[in-house]
Amino acid sequence: MIQGIGASDGIAIGKVYKYEPVEVVIKRERCQDVKSEQQKFKDSIQAGIEALEVLKSKTENEMDEETAAIFGAHIEILRDPELAIAVSDMIASEKVKAEFALKTVSDRFVAIFEAMEDAYIRERAADIKDVTRRVLMILKGIKSKGLSEIDEPIILVAKDLTPSDTALLNRELVLGFITDIGGRTSHSAIMARTMEIPAVVGTMDGFDQLSNGDFVILDGMVGSIIIHPSSDEIEKYTEKVAILNREKSLWQSCKGQKSTTKDFKDIDLAANIGSPDDIDGVIANDGDGIGLYRTEFLYMGRKSFPTEEEQYESYKTVLEKMGDKPVVVRTLDIGGDKELSYFDMPKELNPFLGNRALRLCLQNMDMFKTQLRALLRAANYGNLHIMFPMIATIEEFRKAKAVLQEVESDLETEQIPFSKNYQTGIMIEIPAAALLANVFAKEVDFFSIGTNDLIQYTFAADRMNEHVSYLYQPYNPSLLKLIQMVTEAAHKEGKWVGMCGEMAGENQALPLLIGLGLDELSMSAPSILKARYSLKQIDSIKAKGLADMALQSCTEEEVKLLIDAFWNEV
Amino acid sequence: MIQGIGASDGIAIGKVYKYEPVEVVIKRERCQDVKSEQQKFKDSIQAGIEALEVLKSKTENEMDEETAAIFGAHIEILRDPELAIAVSDMIASEKVKAEFALKTVSDRFVAIFEAMEDAYIRERAADIKDVTRRVLMILKGIKSKGLSEIDEPIILVAKDLTPSDTALLNRELVLGFITDIGGRTSHSAIMARTMEIPAVVGTMDGFDQLSNGDFVILDGMVGSIIIHPSSDEIEKYTEKVAILNREKSLWQSCKGQKSTTKDFKDIDLAANIGSPDDIDGVIANDGDGIGLYRTEFLYMGRKSFPTEEEQYESYKTVLEKMGDKPVVVRTLDIGGDKELSYFDMPKELNPFLGNRALRLCLQNMDMFKTQLRALLRAANYGNLHIMFPMIATIEEFRKAKAVLQEVESDLETEQIPFSKNYQTGIMIEIPAAALLANVFAKEVDFFSIGTNDLIQYTFAADRMNEHVSYLYQPYNPSLLKLIQMVTEAAHKEGKWVGMCGEMAGENQALPLLIGLGLDELSMSAPSILKARYSLKQIDSIKAKGLADMALQSCTEEEVKLLIDAFWNEV
Repeated sequence: MIQGIGASDGIAIGKVYKYEPVEVVIKRERCQDVKSEQQKFKDSIQAGIEALEVLKSKTENEMDEETAAIFGAHIEILRDPELAIAVSDMIASEKVKAEFALKTVSDRFVAIFEAMEDAYIRERAADIKDVTRRVLMILKGIKSKGLSEIDEPIILVAKDLTPSDTALLNRELVLGFITDIGGRTSHSAIMARTMEIPAVVGTMDGFDQLSNGDFVILDGMVGSIIIHPSSDEIEKYTEKVAILNREKSLWQSCKGQKSTTKDFKDIDLAANIGSPDDIDGVIANDGDGIGLYRTEFLYMGRKSFPTEEEQYESYKTVLEKMGDKPVVVRTLDIGGDKELSYFDMPKELNPFLGNRALRLCLQNMDMFKTQLRALLRAANYGNLHIMFPMIATIEEFRKAKAVLQEVESDLETEQIPFSKNYQTGIMIEIPAAALLANVFAKEVDFFSIGTNDLIQYTFAADRMNEHVSYLYQPYNPSLLKLIQMVTEAAHKEGKWVGMCGEMAGENQALPLLIGLGLDELSMSAPSILKARYSLKQIDSIKAKGLADMALQSCTEEEVKLLIDAFWNEV
Repeated sequence: MIQGIGASDGIAIGKVYKYEPVEVVIKRERCQDVKSEQQKFKDSIQAGIEALEVLKSKTENEMDEETAAIFGAHIEILRDPELAIAVSDMIASEKVKAEFALKTVSDRFVAIFEAMEDAYIRERAADIKDVTRRVLMILKGIKSKGLSEIDEPIILVAKDLTPSDTALLNRELVLGFITDIGGRTSHSAIMARTMEIPAVVGTMDGFDQLSNGDFVILDGMVGSIIIHPSSDEIEKYTEKVAILNREKSLWQSCKGQKSTTKDFKDIDLAANIGSPDDIDGVIANDGDGIGLYRTEFLYMGRKSFPTEEEQYESYKTVLEKMGDKPVVVRTLDIGGDKELSYFDMPKELNPFLGNRALRLCLQNMDMFKTQLRALLRAANYGNLHIMFPMIATIEEFRKAKAVLQEVESDLETEQIPFSKNYQTGIMIEIPAAALLANVFAKEVDFFSIGTNDLIQYTFAADRMNEHVSYLYQPYNPSLLKLIQMVTEAAHKEGKWVGMCGEMAGENQALPLLIGLGLDELSMSAPSILKARYSLKQIDSIKAKGLADMALQSCTEEEVKLLIDAFWNEV
């Protein structure tokens, strides 16, 4: 029995597969031909960039943007001309092979960066090491065996898993994983929860204790690993798995049913998507619509802006597949921590308070208009809702609407078919917009509350910063007041309010959100049926009572207790 | 006649003084003794750091923290061991003089940084150049003649003024300045307004057109410079200056009077200070108290934390000098963009949303308790108000109060004299705290609204970031709603509300702030008498009417028009 930290819920029963990354050894070797060696190096950089772009896109779509940003940073390093020039120069002046030149230059950069006082720069040394390793393996022709060679269901055991490793895990075959290093909030733990892979981390010496092929039971709830379990233990855990599965089948039984509360109040349970590929999952989970289509993925992992035609095809596919169901498309939301390699954005001191999303679009009219043209043309094929992100003032919304009108009249002049049959709304993710919801409600068709950012700004705390992450308080009454201001203002004008932040997918939050008056909740597709099942147990009048009490509370803790009490009575 | 951009209001009439920075020429020279050359280099670095620390403190106290931060960054560069080691190594290996080694190493760093893709790193190249120049001048024994040698009233003319230059201007002797480069928002323009020095910038070739000793009239309002003015022109401008002076004497006439509105509603007009040295200015301008004592200046420009005794002396001096008048002391507010060289803070991706102020204090209990002990001991000598910055949740305030109680009982146990006779309040600078003002109002003695940060978070826009600075909207109805929530909640519990952000010192804002229910406004000392004069013209009932209309508005523009209309009727 090994005890670690439960990092991702669920139980896995199976055989151990131990994973150790290959060591890459580089010696000083003379090269034959400088020119061809330099070309070899260039090609390897290009191959590295392409591999990272694939990985980044995959991560964006299957996990989240924050994780994907790690690989974006890696791409930037490979694109740095400073690195390319130094390596090429060394190949020429010392007549050495590309791998030795790269290793030497990289080591020098790492040493400079590691010696810096500035922690931000120092941390980039780790990125340089990672990315160098990737290119060295390309140069040496070493294929990373291991993770991609897994061809049967196993439980993965490793000393540590980098984000690159974790992103590549095959969810069908990796039943669970165990690492010696890490805590509940380490990168690999967070990714495991997103990927719904049971995981135990921080086992200290689990790697040495376990052997390939060992039969184990991994309990991600309590963080334990049972080696060579007894038949009693196997029976007990098989039973637990059965209970978990029974719950899942209850959720599955909600497929095809309407999303309503116990007292038959309709709530739309919609899905967040990143690309047309995600639509199958939405349909499989019977989503009531798309509550958030993150269009920035269309723009990422490529070398230039997507054309109007490319965008049109994507939007059309999503709209057609969803039929009459509403599809909320968020216009381009880059900036902050999301960069495009082909679009130069100045580094900002506080990117989360910087030139992002709609702010950037209004300053880059060609980019913005191309997207709007594609959207209006696709509007012919479904139930389109256009949503503008990062709106703080009504002037910004009016400007964005004016651009929409310009685009309409351009399309009319050019006699290109499009539809005026769409709704226009905004994300509520900045306190100023929530506070002025009464003004916005007169001019928009709908709101969608983006809790992740709204919480960050309301509490002035970057949730990626572990020192202040305790201030990420979705249940704090101050945030609930903002939400209530929005629903109240919207309903007064007959408009609807959705929510598309992480909070919308938390089952526990459901009665509170119903009570606060949300009309739609948008979450990851796999959460929809569970939410529909839970919804049936909630009486909307009682939920309203819960929300009223929560709004009168002093702390997040008090609100959580109220919610617990609510669920206990259900 | 030369036309430029009016950068800082006011009129200056006087003789031209042209300023050109000395050129520093460095040639390769052999050194006699490596050891002593290395020592010479070390000493010059130390001298450079000390000069920068003086400049930084001076800037903090006389100008603002943002400007001072520029010099903080320069100090960090000189403290970088990487630089010191490289220069010392080069002195030893090539037997060259310190200045040549420094220039060479610095040029190499500048080249590396300037070649980086990352704009943030690239911009640091300019800092390295600046700071290198400073140390080279120390090594060469070049005294910067010019700015410090000014010994009669002059109008300064330069191609460009760096922040270092501007910070050193003697306000008594520099009647105004003219630069060829820059716009209204350039560093030197902003500093001119803070220093109340009339200025014209962006004259293109003004430097070449003007000669030393030319008699000119500088009009900072319209941006014009009249060379060799006619006697008519001199008369006209002398008249203008007289009008400006007459206005100033009207303000002066308010000295000794109470701060009340036309209908005799009392409003405290207090001052912001950074050190006990600033008290004389507060008394000269007859401030009703200290609305914000920024204690971080006690911690800056030194090599270790100030002792309890040092802090006690500072607080005692301020409290004693202010007598019965309230003194609001803000506990340490570092982090964000304010660093201490002797206190290691990790670099953050979004420092404004990071581990700042009270958040940091609650994690560094020794540092926090030392300050609170000094404050409670000084409380015996005046009317102390302790104010905690960056509070987002009531738990944070409760934790801070609990520490205060611990400190009280420690002092009791140690039989050290102190007073329990003080008030405890919080800054309202995070939307979450404003939204929950009803909860806070039951537990605090007072609020002070810090508009600078509150605006940044409410609009999710870093006001130092020029691309989004249009979102710095103090008059936007969304912000006014937050302010009104705070005053309403406070007055319900019989508590008072001050304001200590930039908005509090804007004369134009006065009726709106009175109408919103502010009880105290804290500003730079020189603004107090003007505000007192304006206050007398405002009827508080009409101001309330203005505020009500402003709260119903849609945009900042609408609110500004309402305020203009209000003043037109006064």
